[in-house]
Amino acid sequence: MLSEFDLIKQYFRRARTGHAVLGIGDDCALLAPTPGMQTAISTDLLIEGRHFFAGADPRMLGHKCLAVNLSDLAAMGAKPIGFTLALSLPGADPEWLEAFSNGMFALADEHDCELIGGDTTRGPLAICITVFGEIAPGHALRRDAARAGHDIWISGTLGDARLALAGYWKEVALDADDLALAAPRMHLPTPRVELGRALSVLPLAHAALDISDGLVGDLAHILDASKVGATLDVDALPAGPALAQQSLALRRRFTLAGGDDYELCFTAPAAQREAVIATAAGVGVPVTRVGRIEAEPGLRFVDAAGKPVEMDVQGWDHFSGE
Amino acid sequence: MLSEFDLIKQYFRRARTGHAVLGIGDDCALLAPTPGMQTAISTDLLIEGRHFFAGADPRMLGHKCLAVNLSDLAAMGAKPIGFTLALSLPGADPEWLEAFSNGMFALADEHDCELIGGDTTRGPLAICITVFGEIAPGHALRRDAARAGHDIWISGTLGDARLALAGYWKEVALDADDLALAAPRMHLPTPRVELGRALSVLPLAHAALDISDGLVGDLAHILDASKVGATLDVDALPAGPALAQQSLALRRRFTLAGGDDYELCFTAPAAQREAVIATAAGVGVPVTRVGRIEAEPGLRFVDAAGKPVEMDVQGWDHFSGE
Repeated sequence: MLSEFDLIKQYFRRARTGHAVLGIGDDCALLAPTPGMQTAISTDLLIEGRHFFAGADPRMLGHKCLAVNLSDLAAMGAKPIGFTLALSLPGADPEWLEAFSNGMFALADEHDCELIGGDTTRGPLAICITVFGEIAPGHALRRDAARAGHDIWISGTLGDARLALAGYWKEVALDADDLALAAPRMHLPTPRVELGRALSVLPLAHAALDISDGLVGDLAHILDASKVGATLDVDALPAGPALAQQSLALRRRFTLAGGDDYELCFTAPAAQREAVIATAAGVGVPVTRVGRIEAEPGLRFVDAAGKPVEMDVQGWDHFSGE
Repeated sequence: MLSEFDLIKQYFRRARTGHAVLGIGDDCALLAPTPGMQTAISTDLLIEGRHFFAGADPRMLGHKCLAVNLSDLAAMGAKPIGFTLALSLPGADPEWLEAFSNGMFALADEHDCELIGGDTTRGPLAICITVFGEIAPGHALRRDAARAGHDIWISGTLGDARLALAGYWKEVALDADDLALAAPRMHLPTPRVELGRALSVLPLAHAALDISDGLVGDLAHILDASKVGATLDVDALPAGPALAQQSLALRRRFTLAGGDDYELCFTAPAAQREAVIATAAGVGVPVTRVGRIEAEPGLRFVDAAGKPVEMDVQGWDHFSGE
């Protein structure tokens, strides 16, 4: 007789797509690394009520859990290979499990990223994914590789995920249309895997990371690791289409310190401007130049006229933040 | 200013031990696989109140979380390389963090297994470790490799972890000495990494797994995957020193269907008996021959006299079990 435990596993077992030598069902999965390639690894733990609302749509949740991990691979420029899923569930609801696994596998299939192992237990709803990718030695986009004189680039747009959250929280009055425009950025982030790979393969970009906790807080990681500073043009920051309709103050605040953007922030030499734009266009992702790396430590802000502006912003901290 | 979040990370950053090209602090860790070796990967999620008591000693908990993952590598015969740690914590208690990380790192250092990345969040106490090892192609001890005529072997002893739990639950009346004898098997399991490697390198063993949910339930995974059956000699099962002092009925029950044993169960051809014993002695781990793989499906039990006995036992199910 199948236990509830076995039934859950059924939602996650599929025909093999081929990366793993041995997939789900043994003590370990086995991967055969491509000769000469390095393995990129990232892990994220998402907790109900902190990273997503209680009662969140399971299909979108399945997408998002994997997306935030793929976004870490994108930020290194790595090619996705596979992932493990450890799942704590308060109970076994077949409808929930089917929707969750469908959302997760739809995104996994887009990126040819195979579920190779996992663990299931009863407990508060919590999802831990560990993702594996491959990258050629010396090509990883590292946080310590920014140099004075580099341009700072952002993929896509910022702030709509944060605007949606502000709408749910009634922090900002959003009409239904605006919320409908912004909400997918919060629930269904698009990991910039192809862009990250294109930037690392050539290589065009030097430093990169994915913006998950707000641009200012995340850019600080690059500045710290590279021992440099930067100036950002706060009015060049690409606001999402819903946020673009809001006040200047809100646009600045949510593009600088939103959260859940999952766009790439990367640096590249000024001589590569045309190449960066062409490469990004080649993978269908708009990129915007938003500032410059400088030798002087610290982060400074200027407006569209180049005039210094003071901004009081903080990154999003999944531990101390609410 | 360091946030609570940054403070937590400090407990887990250490000087590099050398396996990772890039460790904690970027979007991904980078590993350079040893040319020609496969990567073994396992993940386990431990939840407070289910896998360990609320208020569990943090040093022992740090040990156990990593031990159960290393035990999965041992069961494949893989050499530990590194691990990621995703941690959900209700708050940042420096004493807890120091003890937890010390317990974890003491075991990690024993096995030269490096913490290469992680994630920290606020939430219910939950610990997700994903562990990485290396093994030569074709040497992994897989669940589907048992053949009729193989001996079934068990490392170490079984049942003392379950007896300790029975003591805590007042299911069995244990005096303080017995509980003190049994409890370390529950709180501080020893992953049989060296034995697993020795069995896979030669190779001596064919099928193997680690016994985490009770021998009967776990052996069933080997029988299912290998499409074979088995007979176990219930009186040959090596009971732990505390359990050995209990009644025959309890000894049989807790050796057959305990839980948290983290011993290896493996199969090997009868012609390898001497070699198995010598190899195990070489790494200082006793092994006991407890039965035989047979072509006929199903699991049968005999007593010391070879007489069939009926046993009503079930594996431990972390989802449906309490």
